[in-house]
Amino acid sequence: MIPESMYRELSIQNGKKIVLLVMDGIGDLPRNDKTPLEKARTPNLDRLAKESITGLTYPVSMGITPGSGPAHISLFGYDPMKYNIGRGILEALGIDFEIGKKDIASRANFATIEADGIISDRRAGRIATEKNQEICSYLSSKIKHIDDVDVFIRSGKEHRFVVVFRGHGLDDSVTDTDPQQIGHKPMECKSTDKQGEKTARIINEFVKRVASLLKSHKPANFSLLRGIARYPDIPSMEDLFKLSPAAIAPYPMYRGLARLVGMKILPTESDTSSEIHSLQENWSAFDFFYIHIKKTDSYGEDGNFEKKVSTIEEVDGHIPSIEELKPDCFVITGDHSTPCMMKAHSWHPVPFLLFSPYVRKDLSRAFTESECAKGVLGNFAAVNAMTLMLAHTLKLKKYGA
Amino acid sequence: MIPESMYRELSIQNGKKIVLLVMDGIGDLPRNDKTPLEKARTPNLDRLAKESITGLTYPVSMGITPGSGPAHISLFGYDPMKYNIGRGILEALGIDFEIGKKDIASRANFATIEADGIISDRRAGRIATEKNQEICSYLSSKIKHIDDVDVFIRSGKEHRFVVVFRGHGLDDSVTDTDPQQIGHKPMECKSTDKQGEKTARIINEFVKRVASLLKSHKPANFSLLRGIARYPDIPSMEDLFKLSPAAIAPYPMYRGLARLVGMKILPTESDTSSEIHSLQENWSAFDFFYIHIKKTDSYGEDGNFEKKVSTIEEVDGHIPSIEELKPDCFVITGDHSTPCMMKAHSWHPVPFLLFSPYVRKDLSRAFTESECAKGVLGNFAAVNAMTLMLAHTLKLKKYGA
Repeated sequence: MIPESMYRELSIQNGKKIVLLVMDGIGDLPRNDKTPLEKARTPNLDRLAKESITGLTYPVSMGITPGSGPAHISLFGYDPMKYNIGRGILEALGIDFEIGKKDIASRANFATIEADGIISDRRAGRIATEKNQEICSYLSSKIKHIDDVDVFIRSGKEHRFVVVFRGHGLDDSVTDTDPQQIGHKPMECKSTDKQGEKTARIINEFVKRVASLLKSHKPANFSLLRGIARYPDIPSMEDLFKLSPAAIAPYPMYRGLARLVGMKILPTESDTSSEIHSLQENWSAFDFFYIHIKKTDSYGEDGNFEKKVSTIEEVDGHIPSIEELKPDCFVITGDHSTPCMMKAHSWHPVPFLLFSPYVRKDLSRAFTESECAKGVLGNFAAVNAMTLMLAHTLKLKKYGA
Repeated sequence: MIPESMYRELSIQNGKKIVLLVMDGIGDLPRNDKTPLEKARTPNLDRLAKESITGLTYPVSMGITPGSGPAHISLFGYDPMKYNIGRGILEALGIDFEIGKKDIASRANFATIEADGIISDRRAGRIATEKNQEICSYLSSKIKHIDDVDVFIRSGKEHRFVVVFRGHGLDDSVTDTDPQQIGHKPMECKSTDKQGEKTARIINEFVKRVASLLKSHKPANFSLLRGIARYPDIPSMEDLFKLSPAAIAPYPMYRGLARLVGMKILPTESDTSSEIHSLQENWSAFDFFYIHIKKTDSYGEDGNFEKKVSTIEEVDGHIPSIEELKPDCFVITGDHSTPCMMKAHSWHPVPFLLFSPYVRKDLSRAFTESECAKGVLGNFAAVNAMTLMLAHTLKLKKYGA
């Protein structure tokens, strides 16, 4: 990985176009000796693999299982250990809230508190989502500001909601109010250093006002906050790489991650055809396109091997439409592995393919875990993918004389 | 890469000998499916590859195209991001100026300035090199010192020359005087921090004196300075690795880079036979030999595929003469790739071969990009080559108990 200063010094604009196609959770483990990628009929991916350089990426470091945040951030060229996007922020991105530089975001639960101040249910009996929306709407009408801080309350599923505080002097060096177990009192939000003092005060006031407003709303008569996080101070892709980037991502969290690094969010429906259509429509206006395919991960999480296979085959069918646009560099990879047998993200390295006129082809004959393992790129940190994409589109000047 | 302190702690002298043969710009891309290395008949290199460990190096970081400075510095075992040799220094090395620890060097142009102080030609009509030499000789006779600083003026080709300032308290935290475009006044040299103040004053005085001396020499009536750089504070190979190193390099810049890290420069003509002869003559006196082959890069820069092939074949013919000397470790590699189709340095990883009695042979059957990709060393940072050379000559003690 090169330092950010080096990107700033070496990167140039030249109009050449990059497509980064991310099949979420694509890496897997074999069932009856074959992974979903090995099982799927993928003539286009396999043809591209033969014409490309390939390898396997580790999103963060060998053996580390990443969340969606670090897994994507590293593919976008940022050190995932430096920019750890806080949970509150990810939660806000996940409901498509347009989070900004002055914001602190927190995950929150509606909970049940008893007369003695003890939490008896951290999830308020998992109230219906509709009830949650109703309460959030009521709270939003009553709590618009605390002092000079704007407050935004947005409902999530069941008992979950997100609260965003916007104002000067906010900081996330504060503790959670959620004791994470029943039978305890809620905790006071405390600042862990001087900079968090204002935030702690605002959060405690918020919790107090919510409790007062919901006094008669049992079981949802209290709020618990955790994962209080600040908007990350992350340079934009334009700033670092001189790219004009756009994202085609049907799911809010991925749109949010893309927005964090300064990508323009392009309109799309959730199906892959619609994503490709959006790519075609916007082809002339940007020089970097991130396309996100969610279902490979979802079926991995469900343990649905067959559906993961058919999703891969469906994506394969769209590859020629992307090729027709003649990107100068076309990368196909995942953000991490989600093996069906684990029904969860994993640390396994992720197949990676880079196609450009400037590659020396390597030995891999298909886009699979085992074939990409033969690739010339070897086993490498995903954060280098951006350097490679910029190199193969001649967007990096020579370093040193 | 290990820290310098670890080299100092672990390295020992034992008389075993290392040869590092650098074919400049050797890596390439295929034309009709073959790279120059794949096209060339190289029975000796291929035999060695079968008996060696092999891999592909990246000189600086994946995707980064290096200049000759960083590309060589890393092969010599130094972090190329820590020691970025400034352009002025490389320029001075390139004309074989014996640059020293107290020196600041600058690239310079003769330029044309009009009566109103505007630069009308940054290259003074590309005056003949002979005219340049005449002016430099005249200026040298008139400007030997400025205050307590010695000044050295050396001619280059056409309008280019090099000026070196030697004295106490000089620093390169100063700006260029070259506005890099015509129609502007030259810029004043300014210090970017306190340490650069003396240098800025000396440089402005230099520019003023040159202008006064060349008043009637239109078109070459002014000087523009850029890439003002300090001699890098780099430890010697003897200090770090306890090596007694020598360089056989016909081209000034490579001799200069070798001298920077403390190598003794051995006499040689520019042909490979002469280089091998110099190696034989000096075999007993040193324990590390760097041999530089320039033409592989030159033909890459020219896009001359056939000549690059024949240069490789010629070098191959000299391999047995090196083997006869029985080096304890023999490394053959390049400093970077220079693909003929790009006519320029590139980021593509570089074939690497290390022969010693202590290797486990690997799968590569020839010294080519694609065969070295099968090597046990994989895709690795060139800065590790020095550690491997020292290891394979038993020059590094055990780390820890």
